[in-house]
Amino acid sequence: MINLINNKIKEYINSLPDSLLKEIIAYSLLSNGKRIRPLLCLNLLKDLNIDYSMGSDVALAIELIHTYSLIHDDLPAMDNDTFRRNKLCAHIKYGQSNALLAGDSLLTDSFYIISNSKLYSDNVKLKLLNLFSYYSGIHGMILGQELDLNKIDEQKNIDYYFKMIDLKTGALIKLSLISALIIGGCSDEIINKWKDIGYKIGLAFQIQDDCLDDKSKDNYNILNFLSKNQALEMANNLYDQVNNDIKNFLNIQNIINNLFNREQ
Amino acid sequence: MINLINNKIKEYINSLPDSLLKEIIAYSLLSNGKRIRPLLCLNLLKDLNIDYSMGSDVALAIELIHTYSLIHDDLPAMDNDTFRRNKLCAHIKYGQSNALLAGDSLLTDSFYIISNSKLYSDNVKLKLLNLFSYYSGIHGMILGQELDLNKIDEQKNIDYYFKMIDLKTGALIKLSLISALIIGGCSDEIINKWKDIGYKIGLAFQIQDDCLDDKSKDNYNILNFLSKNQALEMANNLYDQVNNDIKNFLNIQNIINNLFNREQ
Repeated sequence: MINLINNKIKEYINSLPDSLLKEIIAYSLLSNGKRIRPLLCLNLLKDLNIDYSMGSDVALAIELIHTYSLIHDDLPAMDNDTFRRNKLCAHIKYGQSNALLAGDSLLTDSFYIISNSKLYSDNVKLKLLNLFSYYSGIHGMILGQELDLNKIDEQKNIDYYFKMIDLKTGALIKLSLISALIIGGCSDEIINKWKDIGYKIGLAFQIQDDCLDDKSKDNYNILNFLSKNQALEMANNLYDQVNNDIKNFLNIQNIINNLFNREQ
Repeated sequence: MINLINNKIKEYINSLPDSLLKEIIAYSLLSNGKRIRPLLCLNLLKDLNIDYSMGSDVALAIELIHTYSLIHDDLPAMDNDTFRRNKLCAHIKYGQSNALLAGDSLLTDSFYIISNSKLYSDNVKLKLLNLFSYYSGIHGMILGQELDLNKIDEQKNIDYYFKMIDLKTGALIKLSLISALIIGGCSDEIINKWKDIGYKIGLAFQIQDDCLDDKSKDNYNILNFLSKNQALEMANNLYDQVNNDIKNFLNIQNIINNLFNREQ
């Protein structure tokens, strides 16, 4: 499955016009990312008894959006990072202007790939494009990133943190899951159930990540609101809820366990 | 017609979730832009005897892409500008990180608006989304911006300049014109004719702009290759060719004359 994703990524890179942008995009996409979001999509398709290769264009488009968000996030104006996945960040290696444009290209191409896909009907493509533009923009991930930029403020409580994580982390996870459901022709009722599951996965993942992260942060973190023990208990609780929700979905269970580094 | 565009923009802003991003988007969209690209689209619809309000969603989406490109272009990593349309640039007023995210939101929303539109059939929407993602990304505007970042290099000739302008400036002009043709259900033959017209409009416009611009530039400029007189003659020549191409399109003629500040 991971080979399908990586081959799809290579095929995409080969299709790009020769340019420095192509080089930066290859550099950024071919780092050893875990491809969590594409894997969520393909595994849910498998659990729905649909040939998972039907998800390959969506999986590619999701990885492009994730990678664009990392490139822009690493910029000096944002997190000002130097390394990403044990490699220099794109802006350190290629300069800020080129990294910015490479991110813009990746975001734009996520829409190009789906609109050009030969795998889906017009109706499914439109639903996917609508979903992608909803969850990755001001109704989703980007709003989460903006909320994350705000400095700690005592007026804000843990609900602010939940909202921020739902948008910043949850949005792309929901996008990955719902894309599979749309390809599978699932009902709105099922889609709403998985929105909730996606929210819980994102929150559990982010809380666990916040607890593992030793860096002191000016940004919001679960540890601004809870002790480490309380936070880990909350993550465990969410993890158990998710596991109960997905008990009939063996492939998704596998990838979720992987995400939380747990053995079955 | 300009009222339709401006009302559509206000309606869009009102639809956004309350946030700092919404404020930056309003600030950037409500500056006194000339709305050239939306006007090209709506006027071509009028010349095709189609109710031009049918173009309102596309016109809005094009203005969003144009505005996103200006916000990202003004950033210190790019052109490092302070003022835009007699107002402080978004990143000066709101900070670089917020301006970056507002640009990302606008780009993403251009796809959201079209995928959500009630004006077009599924098939037309998909063609539009394909066109938008082609001309605004690595196959169009963004590649042009990357080429523009390159320092002057004596190996490069005027053809490099033509290619850069075709992408950087021509792409969104072609997008504006072809969107109208797609809404009008025009043939590929007609679309190809207007691609050429769009290229010539973009080139004439950029050459004229380069000649008016007194700033010394490190970036490519027609004056690196031609004298000012030669360049203005070339722009005039292109203008005459365009006028001949569009002699049966009175509304488009009008907006083109306006673009080049000429009286009929």
